[in-house]
Amino acid sequence: MLQVNENYLKLPGSYLFSDIAKKVAALKDARPDAKIIRLGIGDVTRPLPHACIEAMHKAVDEMGTAAGFRGYGPEQGYEFLRDAIVRGDFLSRKINVDADEIFVSDGAKSDCGNIGDILGVGNKVAVTDPVYPVYVDTNVMAGRAGDLGGDGRWGNLVYLPCTEANDFVPALPATPVDVVYLCYPNNPTGTTLSRDQLKVWVDYALKTGALILFDAAYEAYITESDVPHSIYELDGARECAIEFRSFSKTAGFTGTRCAYTVVPKSLVATTAGGEHVMLHKLWNRRQTTKFNGVPYIVQRAAEAVFTPEGQREVKENIASYLGNARTIREALLGCGLKVWGGVNSPYVWVKTPGKTTSWEFFDHLLGDLFLVGTPGAGFGPSGEGYFRLTGFGSPDQTKEACERFKKI
Amino acid sequence: MLQVNENYLKLPGSYLFSDIAKKVAALKDARPDAKIIRLGIGDVTRPLPHACIEAMHKAVDEMGTAAGFRGYGPEQGYEFLRDAIVRGDFLSRKINVDADEIFVSDGAKSDCGNIGDILGVGNKVAVTDPVYPVYVDTNVMAGRAGDLGGDGRWGNLVYLPCTEANDFVPALPATPVDVVYLCYPNNPTGTTLSRDQLKVWVDYALKTGALILFDAAYEAYITESDVPHSIYELDGARECAIEFRSFSKTAGFTGTRCAYTVVPKSLVATTAGGEHVMLHKLWNRRQTTKFNGVPYIVQRAAEAVFTPEGQREVKENIASYLGNARTIREALLGCGLKVWGGVNSPYVWVKTPGKTTSWEFFDHLLGDLFLVGTPGAGFGPSGEGYFRLTGFGSPDQTKEACERFKKI
Repeated sequence: MLQVNENYLKLPGSYLFSDIAKKVAALKDARPDAKIIRLGIGDVTRPLPHACIEAMHKAVDEMGTAAGFRGYGPEQGYEFLRDAIVRGDFLSRKINVDADEIFVSDGAKSDCGNIGDILGVGNKVAVTDPVYPVYVDTNVMAGRAGDLGGDGRWGNLVYLPCTEANDFVPALPATPVDVVYLCYPNNPTGTTLSRDQLKVWVDYALKTGALILFDAAYEAYITESDVPHSIYELDGARECAIEFRSFSKTAGFTGTRCAYTVVPKSLVATTAGGEHVMLHKLWNRRQTTKFNGVPYIVQRAAEAVFTPEGQREVKENIASYLGNARTIREALLGCGLKVWGGVNSPYVWVKTPGKTTSWEFFDHLLGDLFLVGTPGAGFGPSGEGYFRLTGFGSPDQTKEACERFKKI
Repeated sequence: MLQVNENYLKLPGSYLFSDIAKKVAALKDARPDAKIIRLGIGDVTRPLPHACIEAMHKAVDEMGTAAGFRGYGPEQGYEFLRDAIVRGDFLSRKINVDADEIFVSDGAKSDCGNIGDILGVGNKVAVTDPVYPVYVDTNVMAGRAGDLGGDGRWGNLVYLPCTEANDFVPALPATPVDVVYLCYPNNPTGTTLSRDQLKVWVDYALKTGALILFDAAYEAYITESDVPHSIYELDGARECAIEFRSFSKTAGFTGTRCAYTVVPKSLVATTAGGEHVMLHKLWNRRQTTKFNGVPYIVQRAAEAVFTPEGQREVKENIASYLGNARTIREALLGCGLKVWGGVNSPYVWVKTPGKTTSWEFFDHLLGDLFLVGTPGAGFGPSGEGYFRLTGFGSPDQTKEACERFKKI
């Protein structure tokens, strides 16, 4: 008789955004006149760059002709895109990554989730707290997280709190870990690690044999020179880190779906029997067996991101989101609140005033100011007492929201 | 220190198609004048239907405007596509499937591979033999297959031979199994199960509590009325089966990437603790956690497959591939060979003459007739002594190939 993967049954429902939606709907019922502004959104809103649109029209036309039609492509992505990525994202920064170390995929969420396939169930996993929930949930599913405690922490995960107390720089784990998820610029806090701060982690991983899973989905938002765009800017990272990148927040691809993962060929693990094995080989086997590549049309759109026109447009879009984030940041600082992020990130992380909880602050912003944000507690125990706002709205709405902040 | 998933190390390299490519390259070197015809290809060659091309151009334009832009869509697929699928693929055949039982994805290969996520590692798995290698390899990766024996069989898998001896109708397993993969019309043999033959499996699953994973990727090629298009045509299948469907072979989407999986809400498993759990709920959790949906543009293309124009074009393409398959089938029968498939399938499965092995037949066809096919042994032990040819080439090349068959 069929057995299910009972690890799934340990997962509590994922209620954060549905709870928010319910509260917003209730307010709309009670106050149909309320002009609600959403600053909780984690999704881009500006249209795709024209360079991508043009590239897709051209690729669509090709697919309609016998000569231009493309069937199955390489599971790892077309050479034209892998080459464009290497030139645009790595060589341009003098970072050493080869085209065949790039695995093009349909999303960083997929890759962050699926990467667990090639890792043993016995690995001890560390996550920063607050955290992007996918890292935690996928490890629960795989049986690496143990049981959920009353404190909101999974028994077998190691939590690395990131709060005002440590200026959002996670301390090295006190007990040994095998896998560490790092997301910088961070979702949800919008904070970053400097080159020296990230070096501490690379050195730790090299020393202990741990693997760093580095999520750089928000890399394009970096404005400060001391913040690394790729973990491979650090010496030794090619021996201890996998990096996830995405076109979603960079080029507005959240509904177009393209991302990539870098698995250096120099990244080697040792088996129980003492054999050395390249993670590149395992991930290649995973992707060729369980994935069939990204649509040709979408890969052409992603390639166009790296053209001069594409780069110009992408930078314009990001500047707009960053402008919104700065506006929010400054408005909140002006209210006397403590604020992080919003400089190298579309996310602004604010400390709720006094002893106000995340959800109390949510209720205040929604009920009194008609503003929607995301309670920090939704991202993990250490998110309690914080609140996330984002720069993905329109500039006009963002400015209007900031006027309302004055009444906090 | 990092542990890898050591099940991956058990997998032998995947050499079938690279071995074929090497042999073809060697012939090209030795005989640069040889006009090679490929009948081994498992990929479509005809351009996308105009209805899909038009729908994509329109969707691309939408993505370039503020009003039409789409960011994250529902992980399960847009309602417009799920509704079109229900109307086009199920209601039209009076099959009861609800739109929210449809999970749109980037491919049947992904879904067939990822479905293992929600199943316990202890399940006993049965596969037909010969078999689409993804079913086997993904179970090896998950640790359900045991070790590979000298006979080419994995110790913990149950093999259901499909050969001339049983007219390619798999017998019920002699020992209890929990999960059964059935692919009909079959890849690689091109054979089918009649409604009565499939009913035997549904009854077995209902009686034993096993789960049927039914791969209907070639459903659109069915020409005979007694062959079910969906396992849900059978009473009780909604209580024991998950069905995989794809636009790849139906509408030429191998490079455009869209498929779907049906998980009926009435499909319930019992946990070790005696709790009842809907597989729909588990798959929904898997997909929302590890997947972010199919590109909006691609979903619009898939929707267009169900328009009258789309249906007309799709049927024309399939008729062309089926015409090729029939041509191959008849030519081989004319040579006195035993042949299956090619009636409800683009695949033709031929018994090699006398004691010729699959690879000997391959070498003969390539070296003497400049024809490329796929040795049956590449699909499993019971594929030895058989050979796969496909109707995905052009009609002209297929006819020329059939002329050459006369020299077999």
